[in-house]
Amino acid sequence: MARRAVLETPRGDIQTPAFMPVGTAATVKALYMDQVKSAGADIILGNTYHLMLRPGAERIHRLGGLHKFAGWDGPILTDSGGFQVWSLSQLRKMDADGVTFRSHLDGSQYRLTPARSIEIQAELLGADISMQLDECTNWPCTYAEAEASMALSLDWGQRSIDAFGDRPDQTLFGILQGSTYEDLRKRSAAGVIRQGFGGIAIGGLAVGEGHDAMCATLDVTIPELPADLPRYVMGVGKPIDLVEAVARGVDMFDCVLPTRTGRHGQAWTWDGPINLKNAKFAEDLSPLEPELDCPASQNYSRAYIHHLIRSSELLGSMLLSWHNTAFFQALMAQLRLSISDGSFPQLRETLSTRWAATKSPPKNSDSI
Amino acid sequence: MARRAVLETPRGDIQTPAFMPVGTAATVKALYMDQVKSAGADIILGNTYHLMLRPGAERIHRLGGLHKFAGWDGPILTDSGGFQVWSLSQLRKMDADGVTFRSHLDGSQYRLTPARSIEIQAELLGADISMQLDECTNWPCTYAEAEASMALSLDWGQRSIDAFGDRPDQTLFGILQGSTYEDLRKRSAAGVIRQGFGGIAIGGLAVGEGHDAMCATLDVTIPELPADLPRYVMGVGKPIDLVEAVARGVDMFDCVLPTRTGRHGQAWTWDGPINLKNAKFAEDLSPLEPELDCPASQNYSRAYIHHLIRSSELLGSMLLSWHNTAFFQALMAQLRLSISDGSFPQLRETLSTRWAATKSPPKNSDSI
Repeated sequence: MARRAVLETPRGDIQTPAFMPVGTAATVKALYMDQVKSAGADIILGNTYHLMLRPGAERIHRLGGLHKFAGWDGPILTDSGGFQVWSLSQLRKMDADGVTFRSHLDGSQYRLTPARSIEIQAELLGADISMQLDECTNWPCTYAEAEASMALSLDWGQRSIDAFGDRPDQTLFGILQGSTYEDLRKRSAAGVIRQGFGGIAIGGLAVGEGHDAMCATLDVTIPELPADLPRYVMGVGKPIDLVEAVARGVDMFDCVLPTRTGRHGQAWTWDGPINLKNAKFAEDLSPLEPELDCPASQNYSRAYIHHLIRSSELLGSMLLSWHNTAFFQALMAQLRLSISDGSFPQLRETLSTRWAATKSPPKNSDSI
Repeated sequence: MARRAVLETPRGDIQTPAFMPVGTAATVKALYMDQVKSAGADIILGNTYHLMLRPGAERIHRLGGLHKFAGWDGPILTDSGGFQVWSLSQLRKMDADGVTFRSHLDGSQYRLTPARSIEIQAELLGADISMQLDECTNWPCTYAEAEASMALSLDWGQRSIDAFGDRPDQTLFGILQGSTYEDLRKRSAAGVIRQGFGGIAIGGLAVGEGHDAMCATLDVTIPELPADLPRYVMGVGKPIDLVEAVARGVDMFDCVLPTRTGRHGQAWTWDGPINLKNAKFAEDLSPLEPELDCPASQNYSRAYIHHLIRSSELLGSMLLSWHNTAFFQALMAQLRLSISDGSFPQLRETLSTRWAATKSPPKNSDSI
């Protein structure tokens, strides 16, 4: 099922399977954009929720759009803001037309509807790929909750398409929901496909269901999708998740993991993750990962990075975020190469065995 | 009195007047070392106090010395640790042979003597330029306090020379004290010159005396010093301080100002300092300083950096620290050039007038 493709955009090609570094607030945390680019990223992600609050979508538009503002001239995908608003469980109020919420920064009130989300993404920020507004469900959730939420997301998908209109240089992705219920996923897929998006995201994953349930959901969902549309799993994930999702035919991913874990002292290597805070690295003169063509991976000793992280020095966060970003890109490049030359099954076997211990177990995100 | 020279070391030449970026904990905060180098710095400073506590001087020695550990192959000057220990007013106990203090990190007890400071700097860290251990005095302080402290520092200077011994590839600087008392400064100078150091620091400044008292102290001290030794004012300073100290014949400076103020949102420009947190920069598309050959100064809008600082994004600290470091180096390069071509008096007049409002007033560091 693994597949190798190129997604063409006016701002450049995206080699898939692709991992998109997350530039939440118009910056991939602790990295210069030229480091993101030289690490191999073709596209980055921006968060509508964060940007609409600060500095504000209209302000970014006045300043020339998100690409100019952030200093990234390649493609940008923005999320709809729905997921972050959904996370604000105490600060939001849903209705059939959208969601009203209070900013976590200053408590001021905002309104997000399918049309407003598209206005922010496509018109004000100028995203190359916009996402429909959807409602995410907690995991686990009841069948009735998942069904109602899935139906709402389908309705919002149509409103998003209507608001998006005719934008030849931009595209809009729909989002499947349905939690881990197979028939809901199939109904959601059928509806989203009918609506005619430029790409399809498999939503409602990476919310605590764990590695195995994610894989099982992909197993029943992906076969429902047409071959000619890019498939995107939002918020995923660890290297083991990427390998197994690629094996099931997923094309695009995004996750804060490389930079967030980097800021907390973790480095991802071909041998698995290591925590540089650990005392065993205090006098380790070896680099983070010699088999990675990135200055952060090759030119600094683990002992030095251990010292920086222990001392809360910014350079420690900078180096680990850079290294991890390069590692995730190198992993995707390896996966792409192996798909092209037919060696993907062996690479998958090797990596999935090696990284088996990193599979996330299920974890309730909320009670039902 | 302004003078242009080259201080030669086995690890490279230092063009003077020189400003040394401070690499407290083996990192110039929020900068990559290649940024420090390309900004124009010939030499950086390391702090003995911080390094002896974490990761430890013996550990750095086992890891190959400070240059290798920090990834800086140019000259390094280390301070003696005395100033930081002096700042720990509640945690230290002075005696005639040295100082016993408790770590601000974990409360464990350490002992610093003139000989131990030299062992750490010259032997374990491998500094190209070591500083004698001295006692700093509060400002203001009584004549008797200043005299006793000056005498102690002279005694410790001799012990430092004895401990330093014969190190042909390294050098040791002595430190003048005497607070703002002219005759004590002269006696201190005479003593330190007799002891035969490779360079002379004018200590006890940048402790709250303010710009004018600093200049007055330099006015009475510098004429006492021989022409063939480098003169170093520790912990100085703002651009206006650098211009006026260079005018009085000082060759070397260090200060955390460029990186510390950068982390707090301040950028130094040819027109003076600006605070990027200020709302007036929210939609300012101009760069920090177009007249500075540094990517941080030219390639990012003030609006973007305003957003980063307001959002506590690490990239904001990174860009402003980089820009400020480059600005201080560019200022020193301008001063050097103007000394060479005879235009220093005009440049001094221009800059000192323009930056007059930034002169620090006197501020008690402690009660006497």
